[in-house]
Amino acid sequence: MTGEEIKSTLTSYNLQSWSKQRGLNPIPVVKGEGIYFWDDQGNRYTDMSSQLVNMNLGFGNKAIGDAIKKQVDQYCFISPSYGAESRAKLAKKIVELMPDNMGKVFFTNAGADANENAVKMARMFTGKNKIFSRYRSYHGSSFGAGNLTGEPRRYPLEPGIPGFVKFFDPYLYREAVCFESEEAATAYYIRKLEEQIQYEGPDSIAAIAMETVTGSNGVIIPPKGYMPGVRALCDQYGILMICDEVMTGWGRTGKLFGFENFDVKPDIVTFAKGVTCGYIPLGGCVVSKEIAAYFDDHLLSCGLTYSGHPLACAAGIACVEYYEEAHILDNVVAVGKVLGEKLEEMKTAHPSVGDVRYIGLFSAVELVKDKVTKEPLVPYGRDPEGVMGKIIGMLKEKGFMTYSHENMILIAPPLIITKEQLIEELAKLDEVLDNVDRKIS
Amino acid sequence: MTGEEIKSTLTSYNLQSWSKQRGLNPIPVVKGEGIYFWDDQGNRYTDMSSQLVNMNLGFGNKAIGDAIKKQVDQYCFISPSYGAESRAKLAKKIVELMPDNMGKVFFTNAGADANENAVKMARMFTGKNKIFSRYRSYHGSSFGAGNLTGEPRRYPLEPGIPGFVKFFDPYLYREAVCFESEEAATAYYIRKLEEQIQYEGPDSIAAIAMETVTGSNGVIIPPKGYMPGVRALCDQYGILMICDEVMTGWGRTGKLFGFENFDVKPDIVTFAKGVTCGYIPLGGCVVSKEIAAYFDDHLLSCGLTYSGHPLACAAGIACVEYYEEAHILDNVVAVGKVLGEKLEEMKTAHPSVGDVRYIGLFSAVELVKDKVTKEPLVPYGRDPEGVMGKIIGMLKEKGFMTYSHENMILIAPPLIITKEQLIEELAKLDEVLDNVDRKIS
Ligand SMILES: Cc1ncc(COP(=O)(O)O)c(C=O)c1O
Ligand SMILES: Cc1ncc(COP(=O)(O)O)c(C=O)c1O
Repeated sequence: MTGEEIKSTLTSYNLQSWSKQRGLNPIPVVKGEGIYFWDDQGNRYTDMSSQLVNMNLGFGNKAIGDAIKKQVDQYCFISPSYGAESRAKLAKKIVELMPDNMGKVFFTNAGADANENAVKMARMFTGKNKIFSRYRSYHGSSFGAGNLTGEPRRYPLEPGIPGFVKFFDPYLYREAVCFESEEAATAYYIRKLEEQIQYEGPDSIAAIAMETVTGSNGVIIPPKGYMPGVRALCDQYGILMICDEVMTGWGRTGKLFGFENFDVKPDIVTFAKGVTCGYIPLGGCVVSKEIAAYFDDHLLSCGLTYSGHPLACAAGIACVEYYEEAHILDNVVAVGKVLGEKLEEMKTAHPSVGDVRYIGLFSAVELVKDKVTKEPLVPYGRDPEGVMGKIIGMLKEKGFMTYSHENMILIAPPLIITKEQLIEELAKLDEVLDNVDRKIS
Repeated sequence: MTGEEIKSTLTSYNLQSWSKQRGLNPIPVVKGEGIYFWDDQGNRYTDMSSQLVNMNLGFGNKAIGDAIKKQVDQYCFISPSYGAESRAKLAKKIVELMPDNMGKVFFTNAGADANENAVKMARMFTGKNKIFSRYRSYHGSSFGAGNLTGEPRRYPLEPGIPGFVKFFDPYLYREAVCFESEEAATAYYIRKLEEQIQYEGPDSIAAIAMETVTGSNGVIIPPKGYMPGVRALCDQYGILMICDEVMTGWGRTGKLFGFENFDVKPDIVTFAKGVTCGYIPLGGCVVSKEIAAYFDDHLLSCGLTYSGHPLACAAGIACVEYYEEAHILDNVVAVGKVLGEKLEEMKTAHPSVGDVRYIGLFSAVELVKDKVTKEPLVPYGRDPEGVMGKIIGMLKEKGFMTYSHENMILIAPPLIITKEQLIEELAKLDEVLDNVDRKIS
């Protein structure tokens, strides 16, 4: 197919996620390598979001590709109840990479169903019903994951599932009160959370589910002591702690898992994206030894045709081993440092940049109309004039590919990006921000 | 890994679907070819359920394997918003294989999320909330698909999502009334369904979702005129008809899609399994032109990281083309005829066989304690003594691999099975049924 044919065929026959379908104009991608990909006209684009923050190792990773081909030659699929070597190996590998309290993995196809099953298991294990999650969060689009989600993508799923309760995020930049220190902020948020637990009734709460670092909704990093504070509440009230590591897992933050930055051990960890870099769909949840043991003699009422898909698991093993062998975390830490410095410079230089937040190679630039009032560049939940789309479009013209959410630009390049490549790309962002500055002045 | 290592690693680190984990003993599978697979000891097994009724073309299909390898060399993944050739091609192919009222495909990872998105789209398009589905049904295990599900696997998801309403299946064999003809049965079921629509309020009902032929719950085939009857009610009351073709799609019933047997055009069709034979996870829903057009100017509030996964779509194209090029439907019809004849013989011969139901290569044997009272071999929703497990175990000893649900044995071999192979395998079933006969006498 020519590029034009790909485009017209897609717009005629395919429904694209999270979009009005009229006027879509998908770039035909014909080749990818490392952090770059090319359209049919030979134009090169830089992937500054790792696609949907899944392609941690970029395009064309040979180790993963070879592992897929090899597994194809044995078999692609066998039911979840059979013994597939790749399934066994990856399960063991993942549990071994987790804190010592973790016991077993339940494999799913992606992130949403990882969270669905985490909630199901938390309810079965605790015998309790309520699930806490946060307003500024995205956990997937299926009914369970979508009810866990706090942001507007949950609205079409309402009236919602009974028992899903939302609490506020530690979103310091836009908090109604101003804190003297991170510790003061933490004390406030933990106190408010405990108050809400009391109001909802601790005996009815099965789990608190959080993105370890909130991703799509703007890389909101918990203040010092926050995660241990939540952990302590969980322990005190017999509530399970679920960390959604779908975006933060597999090296994104400079640690293999996001929660390692905050010195906590969750009871359930959900993962997807980076486990295979999306080369083949795969997700899952890891549960503590205690939860795993519960299902020795209680029916695990979870299941899906492709749980522990052998081909996906083969890709997963190669991918996870690559993170280790290529010392990917070292690169994330080193290049992430440059990212942080550059973003701080931009915050200083640009009137339109209200805040920058970053950890590892995971970052967001929050745009405002006014640095003092912090009025967001677009109002919450809507962007009637398509302002953010235009900014993303300007970046795209320069070959800097990413996406936005609310008034924020996400920057989360593949974890293999070099300092030089990063600096080259951020210069493009700098220019576009000049443009935004002019618009608001 | 040795077979023993695979087993012990899995039972130590992996949670298996729909099971108590203690005592699991997964067969290590090291090789598969056509309808057969082998363990590490060289024992051969025949796949009489196409794994989970997904592996329609059996193990080792070279066309699909080659397509996967080829796509790996281009790229494995690119986000849903980009133009991937395999995504475009498969979307077009699928819509072209559908009735002329169908418009576009929304791709998902598997069956459950196909149904989740069908429900979401039905609600968005109609602006109505209630969703009808049937008691004896399985639509997946995530919250939305699980609430659509009528059988006990839905219980752990309760209290349920508001608006999901169940109605009775046209399960003639166990109906409280006895009908003179299929037509009389149809008249009864359609009348009861209309009554229920009235009670629930037609203006609040978005869709009626059905497995075209109920699968896991015992291959329940709608009586003559039933599907057109439901279609007529849908038209009369402005309700969408969703056909879940996750099991019945892609040739299983002798037609490419199950609904083709019943002369109806659904508004939404969900599919998964056979579209890739499970070589790579893939599912989706096809919506009518009218629904597709609605999303031209209304936000499609559906999305997932792996929608239209390029590697999965490449596998899908090869798989769908193979059905056509290898004239798979002809084989299903021819071998399916033998299957039906043999099952009827067994029903006559065995006191323990209450009913047999079959269409194409999709069939179930329903076991009873007494042919006259029809008392099921195990009570609904439980099998305290593991009777069915023992029967499946006896079949397994003979290398006949399938699974059971309630008091039913599923028989749904790969669509490439020959008459000779089928006859050889059914002889094993015959022997096991002799054994069951002795137990009940
Ligand atoms: C934190 C988080 N959880 C869950 C999901 C859902 O994953 P998927 O799209 O694979 O269902 C996402 C997707 O972006 C995510 O960012
Ligand atoms: C009719 C039907 N719908 C949906 C599903 C769910 O599919 P998956 O297991 O891929 O989520 C199944 C699975 O067996 C099914 O048989």
